[in-house]
Amino acid sequence: MPDIYTHDIRGCYADTVGEGGVSPESMETVFEAASGPWTLMRGALAEDDFPPLTLTNQSDDLAEISDVAARLAESCDVVAIIGVGGSSLGAEALTALATQPSVDLRFLDNPDPETLARFKASVDLARTGAVVVSKSGGTAETLIMAMTIVPALAAARPAESMADYVIAMAEPGDNPVRRLATHWNIPVLDHDPEIGGRYSVFSAVGLLPAALAGLDIEAVRAGAADAIDLNTRSEDGRDAPAVQGAAVSIELLRTRGARITVLMPYADAMWPLARWHRQLWAESLGKNGRGTTLIDALGAVDQHSQLQLYLDGPDDKMFTIITQHLGGRGDRVSPELAALAGADYLAGHTTGDLLGAEQEATIDSLLEHNRPVRRMGVSRVDEAALGALMAHFMLETVMAAFMLGVDAFDQPAVEDGKRLARQRLLTGQTGPKS
Amino acid sequence: MPDIYTHDIRGCYADTVGEGGVSPESMETVFEAASGPWTLMRGALAEDDFPPLTLTNQSDDLAEISDVAARLAESCDVVAIIGVGGSSLGAEALTALATQPSVDLRFLDNPDPETLARFKASVDLARTGAVVVSKSGGTAETLIMAMTIVPALAAARPAESMADYVIAMAEPGDNPVRRLATHWNIPVLDHDPEIGGRYSVFSAVGLLPAALAGLDIEAVRAGAADAIDLNTRSEDGRDAPAVQGAAVSIELLRTRGARITVLMPYADAMWPLARWHRQLWAESLGKNGRGTTLIDALGAVDQHSQLQLYLDGPDDKMFTIITQHLGGRGDRVSPELAALAGADYLAGHTTGDLLGAEQEATIDSLLEHNRPVRRMGVSRVDEAALGALMAHFMLETVMAAFMLGVDAFDQPAVEDGKRLARQRLLTGQTGPKS
Repeated sequence: MPDIYTHDIRGCYADTVGEGGVSPESMETVFEAASGPWTLMRGALAEDDFPPLTLTNQSDDLAEISDVAARLAESCDVVAIIGVGGSSLGAEALTALATQPSVDLRFLDNPDPETLARFKASVDLARTGAVVVSKSGGTAETLIMAMTIVPALAAARPAESMADYVIAMAEPGDNPVRRLATHWNIPVLDHDPEIGGRYSVFSAVGLLPAALAGLDIEAVRAGAADAIDLNTRSEDGRDAPAVQGAAVSIELLRTRGARITVLMPYADAMWPLARWHRQLWAESLGKNGRGTTLIDALGAVDQHSQLQLYLDGPDDKMFTIITQHLGGRGDRVSPELAALAGADYLAGHTTGDLLGAEQEATIDSLLEHNRPVRRMGVSRVDEAALGALMAHFMLETVMAAFMLGVDAFDQPAVEDGKRLARQRLLTGQTGPKS
Repeated sequence: MPDIYTHDIRGCYADTVGEGGVSPESMETVFEAASGPWTLMRGALAEDDFPPLTLTNQSDDLAEISDVAARLAESCDVVAIIGVGGSSLGAEALTALATQPSVDLRFLDNPDPETLARFKASVDLARTGAVVVSKSGGTAETLIMAMTIVPALAAARPAESMADYVIAMAEPGDNPVRRLATHWNIPVLDHDPEIGGRYSVFSAVGLLPAALAGLDIEAVRAGAADAIDLNTRSEDGRDAPAVQGAAVSIELLRTRGARITVLMPYADAMWPLARWHRQLWAESLGKNGRGTTLIDALGAVDQHSQLQLYLDGPDDKMFTIITQHLGGRGDRVSPELAALAGADYLAGHTTGDLLGAEQEATIDSLLEHNRPVRRMGVSRVDEAALGALMAHFMLETVMAAFMLGVDAFDQPAVEDGKRLARQRLLTGQTGPKS
């Protein structure tokens, strides 16, 4: 069996990319420093002691998640997923795969009055449900959306029990979401207190929306488990893709100031994955002046938007291109039509052939311009592939945090803004200071 | 009358932001260097000699655009806008405003076989039309999508003239899109050869989709014209927002290495605007190793994803927050429910109150962390506001190019990748090199 995903950092070494690259000697130093932390991580994974990924060995909770989804789907044509950041980005990434969703999922992650009004105007409230997700149970945006939307749903279904169409997720204990749930008499799924929002995609936070979207949630976890196996095969980390990825990011930052890391999949369905990883990377590493800034890009679209900058702008980036097998897929261009248009190079080719050629051409161009490139690949974009890539990125992020000497699991700076917003609401100061 | 938008760079000066800021003395040097280029730009605008913005003084073509839109809407429930980069991002930014679109617009900007299959499966082909947009007439992605989708539409409407539901835009002369149009006997609107794709939003490229979305296209141009007036009032540029914006970007790059510029609106409907500007900024400035990298962010969502990095990560960014008047807008939280949840700070407040408090709190937090902030504001997010901001960003980008000494209107590096992709298709090499 081929590996669940491929990972190739040769395009980050000077012998491939030229002056843009790292040297085997300096990478060796990074690998040596990483071997201790990797031994810890590997041990934790072996002992099921790293909650975000330990989940991927479980299956006893999947039946409950599927049951909840089936119950919601019975009484709803539309389900609003009310949550923000880690409570929505993972679910958005997974549900991008949906082709035959059981219900129409709408992610409400911003208390934008215009969006919320459009949402309410576009659905039949009597056939709409909600999943309210907040780890702490106290996220202001989630609370205000829940407190304005859920009552509107209830008003449209006076005869039904709210438990049939609204469900919440929050950690145990006393918190605002739990209090609302008690008041509304709706069920609450436990959000594991030991799993931070941005690491929660393999729990019900990611999998309940995935099940509502008609996806194979067992395959998501199985793909993640395969990726963990692939990584933990390596005892010292040198052959673990996640360690390699973290090492090359940190080394390119140290030696060449690659402060920006561009994540560019070549599949529309992987763009939300890139935005999920953007949060994971930013909140886990961006502290004490450290970290790098991850940018989500999308091939082939951003060839016509960002590639000029990537090739010929400041040399401050590394690139991760996520490829898939595309040759032969999609509709084929009639040779007569291509000839008539004067576009013979497209004659007889499919849309997948073109996109496939472009993902390779972009990698070639970047290397020719001495821009370091890591290549990741999946054979097809499905539940297992997304699960695998997400597990990879979690491991890589935690390893990068070790290397940078920061705590991968906190986000101390944002508490500030939350305090300031509350203060402004309490004092009625919702406009700019004079 | 208040200005069509507000612009405030005080948060970039050391007396407001502390050690993060620029000094009046160094800014003076930049303004002096900019006054020559600004005089040229101002002169060109006065003489209607800057095609992308000269358009905003015209109205004689608007009737044709509206007529074309009305004709398409008559025979279509869905219209695919087939184009990539400058041929789609501006239209996507404008149509984000649509609440009552005449037709369901779908932007096909990526030859992803999965997306195209989903598109075809989700529409009634016999009630679907297409707008094919490529300035050069030879964009590979646009051509392959047009050559695979338009024949499928035609097959579903054997009795109708293709001119009723398909239209193209390309520059005059002999090119693949024009040849296809001749073959299909469909009309072609001229893409002005003097207007690059990323500067084309005020032409039919942006306005035909906007008209299809039921928007007031005259107001888009009027808003842009207001922004031009606001800027050109300033003779030496010191009081022109676009010159101030360019100057502060360049100065923060020079003195403090602010290589990243974050554009963060607080309205879902302005997120596509940020992605439009991301292309404009990247392709116009990212050359000869120069330029800065623009990141699109969205408030309040990215407070829960990126703010940790912005506040406490590397100090290599400047921030532009686009605010709107939000107080009192949206649904109001019942005080009883808020009290019961233990979220008294939300009692009696609307979703707009919260989002309004958050945009201010984010600005305050950034300043407290010595991160330079520019504030832009509109009273509401409508056609005039988007037109104004787009005109502003075009002027600012061109002025920044002057200051950096690069050509704002070319994109030489991307031609490389196009060549490599064609080569791979012609030689059948659609996979990685061994």
